[in-house]
Amino acid sequence: MAWQQQLSASHGCRITVFDADLSKREGVEAFADQVIQACDAVDVLVNNAGFFEPGSVHDEPEGTLERMLDSNLLSAYHLTRRLLPGMMARRSGHVFNICSVASLQAYPNGGAYSISKWALLGFSRNLREEMKPHGIKVTAVHPGATLTASWDGFDIEPTRIMESGDVAAMITAAAGLSPQACVEEILLRPQLGDL
Amino acid sequence: MAWQQQLSASHGCRITVFDADLSKREGVEAFADQVIQACDAVDVLVNNAGFFEPGSVHDEPEGTLERMLDSNLLSAYHLTRRLLPGMMARRSGHVFNICSVASLQAYPNGGAYSISKWALLGFSRNLREEMKPHGIKVTAVHPGATLTASWDGFDIEPTRIMESGDVAAMITAAAGLSPQACVEEILLRPQLGDL
Amino acid sequence: MAWQQQLSASHGCRITVFDADLSKREGVEAFADQVIQACDAVDVLVNNAGFFEPGSVHDEPEGTLERMLDSNLLSAYHLTRRLLPGMMARRSGHVFNICSVASLQAYPNGGAYSISKWALLGFSRNLREEMKPHGIKVTAVHPGATLTASWDGFDIEPTRIMESGDVAAMITAAAGLSPQACVEEILLRPQLGDL
Amino acid sequence: MAWQQQLSASHGCRITVFDADLSKREGVEAFADQVIQACDAVDVLVNNAGFFEPGSVHDEPEGTLERMLDSNLLSAYHLTRRLLPGMMARRSGHVFNICSVASLQAYPNGGAYSISKWALLGFSRNLREEMKPHGIKVTAVHPGATLTASWDGFDIEPTRIMESGDVAAMITAAAGLSPQACVEEILLRPQLGDL
Repeated sequence: MAWQQQLSASHGCRITVFDADLSKREGVEAFADQVIQACDAVDVLVNNAGFFEPGSVHDEPEGTLERMLDSNLLSAYHLTRRLLPGMMARRSGHVFNICSVASLQAYPNGGAYSISKWALLGFSRNLREEMKPHGIKVTAVHPGATLTASWDGFDIEPTRIMESGDVAAMITAAAGLSPQACVEEILLRPQLGDL
Repeated sequence: MAWQQQLSASHGCRITVFDADLSKREGVEAFADQVIQACDAVDVLVNNAGFFEPGSVHDEPEGTLERMLDSNLLSAYHLTRRLLPGMMARRSGHVFNICSVASLQAYPNGGAYSISKWALLGFSRNLREEMKPHGIKVTAVHPGATLTASWDGFDIEPTRIMESGDVAAMITAAAGLSPQACVEEILLRPQLGDL
Repeated sequence: MAWQQQLSASHGCRITVFDADLSKREGVEAFADQVIQACDAVDVLVNNAGFFEPGSVHDEPEGTLERMLDSNLLSAYHLTRRLLPGMMARRSGHVFNICSVASLQAYPNGGAYSISKWALLGFSRNLREEMKPHGIKVTAVHPGATLTASWDGFDIEPTRIMESGDVAAMITAAAGLSPQACVEEILLRPQLGDL
Repeated sequence: MAWQQQLSASHGCRITVFDADLSKREGVEAFADQVIQACDAVDVLVNNAGFFEPGSVHDEPEGTLERMLDSNLLSAYHLTRRLLPGMMARRSGHVFNICSVASLQAYPNGGAYSISKWALLGFSRNLREEMKPHGIKVTAVHPGATLTASWDGFDIEPTRIMESGDVAAMITAAAGLSPQACVEEILLRPQLGDL
């Protein structure tokens, strides 16, 4: 892929891409196996898989919540559980869970998406406490509206929405702190507020 | 049942009991059907089904989270969605979701239970916003340790844990307010704090 | 006063009223002295003094925050500190702090009022932890818009705003639980949301 | 000062230091005047003045809360209000309020410090909402224990506490995002948790 070669060249690092469908359990397992085989160590795990569909908890289509839980919660839960033993053995690693502003308050048309992101925060907070003595950091990131494929088809003014680089910059900063500091939560929104 | 007859006699009201396994989707459907057939109207729905197992998100047995979501989240989600249309048609009703202190912060040995209760709070908060214009109240109740069957087998001093009547008293009070007032959250704990 | 005699008659209890300006330190002291002299024991203390002025933190008049802190925070802080020793000696008592929805999130035109109510919640949360071993309960109550003198002069539809009796009913319920149960937080709003 | 010359040399920038006692209103005014005279524009304002004294809200010495409010809340409130008009005229600027983990939950021996930091968060949250349309960003930073002069005299293992550079790194990252992105909250703690 072009972006992969560009990044490799500009940063002088090796980039490996695996295709995976993390909404399915077997996809998570296969991806975890590939990562474990390819990497000596996982230093940073960013749980960012997920998707958004507007809806309301009281009348969204049957099956919506189950699909949202599969993609937005169970993907991160099972992948993390597969990669943690290696991190715990090395007493090192940093897990970022990309939650959402919809993890913290009801979101108009959030529906099952909001429930799944709320659950992801519950996972993140409990994991943080459990990993304290193991030397592994856990950070919950709550981005508001960010220009990703989730917004394809919406007519958005670019100045009204965050860039994915904004989220990445905060993650990079948090990943670079001294070993004894753990960023627990980062909440960021469009300057003009939620869309 | 004895308690049923006692309550009927002392309060002069009709009590009907349905056995249901709400951890299974067909159990939810059957229970909803029975309720709809037996009741002219559902005035108060208390989503209290659920169970607790101590554990840690990083090493609890495979399948724990899925079972917790089934019992503690999807039971309430699907049952509420089945009973809401009747409430919305009458523009009246009150849904109480029995969340937990584990819905609000990491709980030692909370594990998947905490994730499921966090998700239940997400459901409750979104439902509250959605139901505002429909005249239906939604309340999230967060009890700490309460003497129920969940604590069977633990050696608990009675003065160290709340009685289920404490939770019931707060629900009764919240259900009796003026039509224009909605209790959104109630948090109660043992006086001496979490167990 | 007429309401005083009515209440005394209907409830068969003695009611004593003290006039006090709790926005001034000497008013707090005088009131505390009167209470201590008149009461064998303080079972329930409801810190409800305070006032609201719409404004914005960035341009409200000079001195606004200082006055809000005096009325809405320091009144409760100093009065509670004066009455606590008696409660602690008896290992019994219940302090209710009437915070606000403006203690939990930015409130349009909340201004210094919101800051003072946020601070009152900080006081309440810390006091709750400190009083755990002393047998004294502490509850933070967060009412949204309630029909009190604060709304005099505003044109409010009665169905759009809570009654003070709604708040009182929740406090009464919380004050009546078993000794081992402490309601920590109650959040209630108009059914249709914030005004 | 040596550090000042070092920083100037290594970063090629001009550094100006003003001594100020921000616990006193006249100190705030004098400092604001100096800043306004010396700077063409204030791009970033970090409200970090404040001090900590261990204590309990129920028995800390008389006057403690008033002093904490002066240093930890009113300093930031009045200084920000003095510098905001220039920022608003340019539609640009970023205010960081250094709150605390004690802004979010009761802190053992937090006492009046916790109340003042809670109030500072209330200021920050309201200011954030007010400044949205003015193009000015507002960020609340919640550091746990950080090795500063506040900990002089305590016997702290260096690996148990964060470095001030950890907090600075997160602020620097947040200050460098795209104009349309605003970091609202950053929470960071020692990896091993609160001290």
